[in-house]
Amino acid sequence: VAADPLAEALARIVGPADCLTDPDLTAGYRTDWTGRFTGPARCVVRPGTTDEVAAVMALCAAAGQAVVPQGGNTGLVGGGVPRGGEVVLSLSRLVELEAVDPVGGTVVAGAGVTLAALQAHALAAGWDVGIDFASRDSATVGGLVATNAGGTRVLRHGDVRAQIRGVEAVTAAGVVVDRMTRLPKDSTGYDLPGLLVGSEGTLAVVTRVVWRLVPPAPERVTALFGLASYDDALTVLGEVRTAHAVLGAAETFGRAELELVRRHAGLAPPLRADHPRYVLLECEGRGAVEALARVLDGYPLVAETAVAVDAAGRAALWAYRERITECINAEGVPVKLDVAVPPTSLGRFEERVPEVVAGMAPNVRVLSFGHLAEGNLHVNLLDATEAEAEAVEGAVLTLVAGFGGSISAEHGVGIAKRRWLHLTRNPEDIAVMRAIKDALDPHGLLNPGVLLAPAADG
Amino acid sequence: VAADPLAEALARIVGPADCLTDPDLTAGYRTDWTGRFTGPARCVVRPGTTDEVAAVMALCAAAGQAVVPQGGNTGLVGGGVPRGGEVVLSLSRLVELEAVDPVGGTVVAGAGVTLAALQAHALAAGWDVGIDFASRDSATVGGLVATNAGGTRVLRHGDVRAQIRGVEAVTAAGVVVDRMTRLPKDSTGYDLPGLLVGSEGTLAVVTRVVWRLVPPAPERVTALFGLASYDDALTVLGEVRTAHAVLGAAETFGRAELELVRRHAGLAPPLRADHPRYVLLECEGRGAVEALARVLDGYPLVAETAVAVDAAGRAALWAYRERITECINAEGVPVKLDVAVPPTSLGRFEERVPEVVAGMAPNVRVLSFGHLAEGNLHVNLLDATEAEAEAVEGAVLTLVAGFGGSISAEHGVGIAKRRWLHLTRNPEDIAVMRAIKDALDPHGLLNPGVLLAPAADG
Repeated sequence: VAADPLAEALARIVGPADCLTDPDLTAGYRTDWTGRFTGPARCVVRPGTTDEVAAVMALCAAAGQAVVPQGGNTGLVGGGVPRGGEVVLSLSRLVELEAVDPVGGTVVAGAGVTLAALQAHALAAGWDVGIDFASRDSATVGGLVATNAGGTRVLRHGDVRAQIRGVEAVTAAGVVVDRMTRLPKDSTGYDLPGLLVGSEGTLAVVTRVVWRLVPPAPERVTALFGLASYDDALTVLGEVRTAHAVLGAAETFGRAELELVRRHAGLAPPLRADHPRYVLLECEGRGAVEALARVLDGYPLVAETAVAVDAAGRAALWAYRERITECINAEGVPVKLDVAVPPTSLGRFEERVPEVVAGMAPNVRVLSFGHLAEGNLHVNLLDATEAEAEAVEGAVLTLVAGFGGSISAEHGVGIAKRRWLHLTRNPEDIAVMRAIKDALDPHGLLNPGVLLAPAADG
Repeated sequence: VAADPLAEALARIVGPADCLTDPDLTAGYRTDWTGRFTGPARCVVRPGTTDEVAAVMALCAAAGQAVVPQGGNTGLVGGGVPRGGEVVLSLSRLVELEAVDPVGGTVVAGAGVTLAALQAHALAAGWDVGIDFASRDSATVGGLVATNAGGTRVLRHGDVRAQIRGVEAVTAAGVVVDRMTRLPKDSTGYDLPGLLVGSEGTLAVVTRVVWRLVPPAPERVTALFGLASYDDALTVLGEVRTAHAVLGAAETFGRAELELVRRHAGLAPPLRADHPRYVLLECEGRGAVEALARVLDGYPLVAETAVAVDAAGRAALWAYRERITECINAEGVPVKLDVAVPPTSLGRFEERVPEVVAGMAPNVRVLSFGHLAEGNLHVNLLDATEAEAEAVEGAVLTLVAGFGGSISAEHGVGIAKRRWLHLTRNPEDIAVMRAIKDALDPHGLLNPGVLLAPAADG
């Protein structure tokens, strides 16, 4: 094969071992975690420093070459894999992790640091990370920032945007922008960190961040409840809040999701009986166990409970929730929706989805689970043809919009949801987003086609 | 005088009673609260609806007429008063306040709603507002959003940006952008609400918001401590945090500020003796009183304490902190700095400021007070000539930048701090901000000269 002069020039920047063109070596960078999104890449570059990222971007800008930034490649909306010959810019080598600032409670982390590494680093310094989710061993800081990731601790500590004090980023033109502010209050100009969080690699390439840490919980208790319905789940949630227990997590799944996890992950039944709805609650802080006990004591809505306070017991309960995603993948390639509705609408939403699906695609299986307190459900469609998937996706997301909900609560819009953006973002809003995109990436080289349609000249 | 055709056209939109050209009637809109910033206005318009705001902006855009949005005119950086014949767009009539969503804990509020009105409305519905500060009766939602205001509760509930779920805004061209999302998780596209918060009226005119409320504290205890130094203050703050008391506020001031408040506001001494440093702590939640008592019990750093649990007693203690600003104004027109340094640098900062000032302007008095936990001090310079003020301001802000601090923690950049922006924002960062400004306000009609230099063609 003829050598690619651009790839050769990129290899001179990052070193030949970190500019990959061999299809066998690039395969893992070209297909997403679900297997649903895949495409050709011109090459994969893995710069080792911010300056190398800047040089890569400058070279690509000069060549009019589109770039797809990539973190741990655990995204679910096709936002981090190539579509048509882009350069894949892997930030996986930016694994710098500075010492924790013990007074301010912040840490500087490179985009390639995994969530698990960040957590271990924080805990070793007597702090904790306010974000957690199942793909913590692969997902990276850069990807968390790009998607404004959520997970299981949002109700206590907020989303990723709430954790980010400062950013360093490289523009489409290859300019390094340093806004590495560490202060809790520094309202000097536009909120660039907040704008880049959730921008899905379309405005700039985030290379480092100042991450705000949280104090570790002195005590933690995890309980799995068997309940009859979403409405009962919300009532219990309200009781726990009224009891002034500090709620650390409130997750939910149903009978079908539990069956799937038991089958594929080989887990024993968590409770004696089957229940239509399961809720995994975690309370933290001094007195958490007593507070939870007060709520549970003779509480008629809760049919059964498993409670754990030690790490092993808590992990065993969390496994029922955290292994759902991988067990769905074991059944096939799912179409993944990440929606939110006002929590009080969850019961009605649960009724309507099967009606909508049954009318269009009777063989499609729907599995859903997620974050109860925010009404954020991960709706997975299995066994759908492409045509069925599109029709069902459109119908479910239209339903979500009708509830005043979100079509993308924490995974991002990516390629997968772009066509549905109009359901919850009006033309004026999209025009403002387009103006910002064109201002920061005038030639449409950064992750083209993600979130917004590619520019006409891109 | 000849009639102004633009003012006449604006009067047809908002009604003649709400388009003011008489200098006596516009005077209150043309001078800021400190008396330091003032300028001529072409007219003052007070639209009563979002559609009227849009029509005003469209008309001004067509005429190439610059506009200064204004809230309660309590700003301290000259960002809300005219400089040279702009149209002042007062949002004071947008006082819509919808019923509180009792489950989601949100409320829709117009830009003209005062903070006090928002607080009363929330409390009546069993909720509270996470923001509070002394000018609550005049400051409005629109101004709070424009400046990303802070205040006394930031350490517990975050800044204004953390409270805002959704916004409705009118662009420079007069287009209404509706992003009134109410959901806790809705990561669908760029964070326009977060971008507009803190943009000081330079990107769009915010007309309504979805404000996230917080649960009211079940119990609250306020304590005023007499201490020897900032370092002792930080040690006590750390003790309270370690005792797992929920800290609601941590304010600070010194001997000179207390003397000023006693003199002008006629307040009795709060403690038996004088102390170099005072700290006002508030703890909230069940067990707050006991938690604070445990910390205070025989704690050697605390020389004296006044404690209050009832509303009247708490208000009496808060008066020593909240009345400082008005008492400074009673002494003269201050030059106001709003800086933050890492809290551990507060002691060193306090030593260095008088040295810097004494060398340049020996007659200038420096008064400072503020938010201990964030290291956010309001530094007021009294009795300075214009030349002294500029020299001292530059020297103090350079000192702040040297500590890795913020030159504008919660008041905004406005006109007052624009010339110092380069101290903590590098050229690449300012270029990105400029690109965003130019994208959303290409003709530079929105609050020209605030935050960024006026555009060449503006």
